[in-house]
Amino acid sequence: MKSYRKELWFNTDKRLDFINITPQINHCLKESGIREGLVLVNAMHITASVFINDDEGGLHHDFEVWLEKLAPHGPVTQYLHNRGEDNADGHMKRQIMGREVVVAITDGLLDFGPWEQIFYGEFDGRRKKRVLVKIIGE
Amino acid sequence: MKSYRKELWFNTDKRLDFINITPQINHCLKESGIREGLVLVNAMHITASVFINDDEGGLHHDFEVWLEKLAPHGPVTQYLHNRGEDNADGHMKRQIMGREVVVAITDGLLDFGPWEQIFYGEFDGRRKKRVLVKIIGE
Amino acid sequence: MKSYRKELWFNTDKRLDFINITPQINHCLKESGIREGLVLVNAMHITASVFINDDEGGLHHDFEVWLEKLAPHGPVTQYLHNRGEDNADGHMKRQIMGREVVVAITDGLLDFGPWEQIFYGEFDGRRKKRVLVKIIGE
Repeated sequence: MKSYRKELWFNTDKRLDFINITPQINHCLKESGIREGLVLVNAMHITASVFINDDEGGLHHDFEVWLEKLAPHGPVTQYLHNRGEDNADGHMKRQIMGREVVVAITDGLLDFGPWEQIFYGEFDGRRKKRVLVKIIGE
Repeated sequence: MKSYRKELWFNTDKRLDFINITPQINHCLKESGIREGLVLVNAMHITASVFINDDEGGLHHDFEVWLEKLAPHGPVTQYLHNRGEDNADGHMKRQIMGREVVVAITDGLLDFGPWEQIFYGEFDGRRKKRVLVKIIGE
Repeated sequence: MKSYRKELWFNTDKRLDFINITPQINHCLKESGIREGLVLVNAMHITASVFINDDEGGLHHDFEVWLEKLAPHGPVTQYLHNRGEDNADGHMKRQIMGREVVVAITDGLLDFGPWEQIFYGEFDGRRKKRVLVKIIGE
């Protein structure tokens, strides 16, 4: 069994943002030399997500509106967590969008359907945060 | 390390549907000959889910009502994504229910609690869509 | 490839509860002797979750209020599932919080960001329930 590990760093301009990281994951996969196995991609921070969905700007806008409705940022005083912080909503948004994805590797490629793309979802940005890429296989 | 891969195809009559795919996954596992490892089961489409929950019709009805409340299908014009499409809600419902499950394999069996069953969750059906089964182990 | 399996048992006093199980997972990891690989930690019951977030009491209170808003326990008669049971909301809360986490193992340690902690999330407690820990690697 071979294993591979890499950290990807992000620092978004906005508090909430979605970044397509599929090219970086493809690069990691090539670098690993692993042709059969699994890749785990996870946010290393608890107000961020890694998820798989569509690379379509309209949908990303819809996601933002929807997440704000399900877990509103303000008023920040509605959350006990926001004593000295203001990111309780980010912890919730990340639960809906998920911490991680696990993707099959087949013949040295991400084994994806036609529209699957991997995104970093930031819910408390404007600072440096990390994603972990771990690949195991042969 | 051994690996195994299979695609399962679905074409539901309804836009939203839940299908118990545990028998198919058990069949894959037997076919793979793998006795210790992990199985990844994921929707290959971004308006569908694979999740583990109860095989109880009342609950599936409740899930449908609940998902419709959290991410309503209509009015379809409320979503920017719905320019030429009408499935923005399906992308959201899939985030709540999840893209994938990872299940332990022990002694050649799915290592499940008493009520765990694997479901394909369809949120934009009436066309052919796929689930990926990837097993790694020994 | 080595593999390791352990069940952890819980019996919470409250219907809804969050328990930090990171120490137990660290103990399993040490016991396994596995230094590179993946650990899967999943609820074996369908009204419970395993998730990664912050070990902060205010946030856990916020999670409870938030989950109750998204998937209210009562009135229990609003759910078809609640014929002889009253836990339909627990099945929903578990979908939001997730069934499982997959964590990278690097150099014999959980490969975590600064604040990541693993929690058992109980949504229908006051009885014995289990979490599965499965580790594969070398």
